[in-house]
Amino acid sequence: MTMLPIAVDAMGGDHAPDAIVAGAKAAAAAGTPVVLVGPSNLGELTDIGDLPLIEANEVIEMDEDGGRSVRRKKDATLVRAAEAVRDGKASAMVSAGNTGATMASALLRMGRVKGVNRPAIATIIPFPGGRPTVLLDAGANAEVQADWLVQFAQMGAVFSHHRFGVDSPKVGLLSIGEEPGKGDSLRKETFGLLEAAAGDDLNFIGNVEGRDVMSDTADVIVTDGFTGNVVLKTLEGGMKAVVAALLGAFTSKPEYKEHADALMPALLPLYETLDPEAYGGAMLLGVDGVCIISHGSSSERAIVNAIQVAREMVEADVVGEISAAIRPADA
Amino acid sequence: MTMLPIAVDAMGGDHAPDAIVAGAKAAAAAGTPVVLVGPSNLGELTDIGDLPLIEANEVIEMDEDGGRSVRRKKDATLVRAAEAVRDGKASAMVSAGNTGATMASALLRMGRVKGVNRPAIATIIPFPGGRPTVLLDAGANAEVQADWLVQFAQMGAVFSHHRFGVDSPKVGLLSIGEEPGKGDSLRKETFGLLEAAAGDDLNFIGNVEGRDVMSDTADVIVTDGFTGNVVLKTLEGGMKAVVAALLGAFTSKPEYKEHADALMPALLPLYETLDPEAYGGAMLLGVDGVCIISHGSSSERAIVNAIQVAREMVEADVVGEISAAIRPADA
Repeated sequence: MTMLPIAVDAMGGDHAPDAIVAGAKAAAAAGTPVVLVGPSNLGELTDIGDLPLIEANEVIEMDEDGGRSVRRKKDATLVRAAEAVRDGKASAMVSAGNTGATMASALLRMGRVKGVNRPAIATIIPFPGGRPTVLLDAGANAEVQADWLVQFAQMGAVFSHHRFGVDSPKVGLLSIGEEPGKGDSLRKETFGLLEAAAGDDLNFIGNVEGRDVMSDTADVIVTDGFTGNVVLKTLEGGMKAVVAALLGAFTSKPEYKEHADALMPALLPLYETLDPEAYGGAMLLGVDGVCIISHGSSSERAIVNAIQVAREMVEADVVGEISAAIRPADA
Repeated sequence: MTMLPIAVDAMGGDHAPDAIVAGAKAAAAAGTPVVLVGPSNLGELTDIGDLPLIEANEVIEMDEDGGRSVRRKKDATLVRAAEAVRDGKASAMVSAGNTGATMASALLRMGRVKGVNRPAIATIIPFPGGRPTVLLDAGANAEVQADWLVQFAQMGAVFSHHRFGVDSPKVGLLSIGEEPGKGDSLRKETFGLLEAAAGDDLNFIGNVEGRDVMSDTADVIVTDGFTGNVVLKTLEGGMKAVVAALLGAFTSKPEYKEHADALMPALLPLYETLDPEAYGGAMLLGVDGVCIISHGSSSERAIVNAIQVAREMVEADVVGEISAAIRPADA
């Protein structure tokens, strides 16, 4: 069976279309079928080589309201990308554009997986020296209900298994204390539901705390989209501050240069581990199609990785696996 | 006027009583009056020198339930420490013990500042190369109301002013987008209240995001105790992971050692900046007395710093300033 192409939103992200199209071309050259989604004159804006194009003549800007813009701009690139998946013209969509609009497009055009209450953004938290942790929801739902969090746990476990090859991923509920009674009323209720849902398909390890996010305590950490988004961005900001401070320290005196240079072979792998671009973006779990949300600042390399992840998630049939994982809970 | 001594809970924290008492002795030797709170045989457990002792013959362990343990163990060290402040025998209390029990003791024995709905834990987030940020609430209230958050903003601004000498501290509301409409219903409601309360005494700069926590965007960041605690511990865990990875990289080959050694003078100040022990712990704002909550893992040095902060907060009359800041809003 030939794989359908991955639909890449050529106009999404801070470095669109150049970096996006360059990433799409590199992925195609490496053997993954890709179709660009962009305006009819995209070939005049940047060199698209011989990549095919799905025409979409509106662009949703990074600061537009997600839901509203998708309803108004029906010919927007990320709307057409989601339609391509729905219509069987593409196997997945990748966008580094407006996250809210990407979610809304995927939800409105692809629809939800049967039985899923709400889709959630699964993002990757690196852990130097160990396996990354899947954190969800990273921002799709600012307010959630306990039973949605149970589904996030189920979907996150499927994602962790196929994304990182983890058998029986350890799933933790993010709270402010390890004991079952710790946290707000939402966590207390969720804890009970997760205990009841735990079994062969869900390896619930109990509450985890903020200090466990960047660690190997859990493979999947479940939380509401408000907390998840704050955690993700707090870590991104923290790592950026530390890297900047390290570089500042290394260049604070001329005599440090040779020593810093000598250590670079040891430091680069660490820097690489912490770089969000290495993970190919987040995945919107629970919609009826593969939707990869890449960072707004995505470079060519980030897009190459995002397309690779999209391909792997299609080949692993993660959407079908999520459907299978959710159904019994609702039966 | 002679300053009343600072009451130090000798039995609180992972390294009690040795590290705690050593810190108390060092602070006293440096000129800050200190009184220990501990069992009658404390002098047999560790060398207390000539420090005075307030007797308290029960200990609340780190894993006990805060509220319950305080109601049951009326002769616990941190309960007696709070009573010493209430009864005018001490000017402040410092504990590295059970955080929940410390809060409960302070609240039940000292009482709230008139007009304050709920006390909040103000913690310090370091920023390499710049001024630390005050984050509150870091865990006193897992669930909050919008008007409590407004008081947290007012109390946090007073604390930032006296703790770091900031004139007109920039106060941000932690959310998941900068625009006023972003976030959950609690943030939307709070945003409106903070806009209305902003003025000469409250420099509200709007929503801030997770990436702004470890930065100089805001001097004070306001959030609920669930999110604040998760953010604090996420950063602590993240910094620990990065420092461990750096040390691992520097020792991964023998030839790196001389270069790492040569860079140590540049790296130590950064390490120092990121070390929570350097900041002397968190302060419980809104109770009618100075209560400093030091990290459970506090070393002697952390206790010295905590006692120093307690002294500064007493001398600046932060409790009186909070009372003045809260009153007009309720009038």
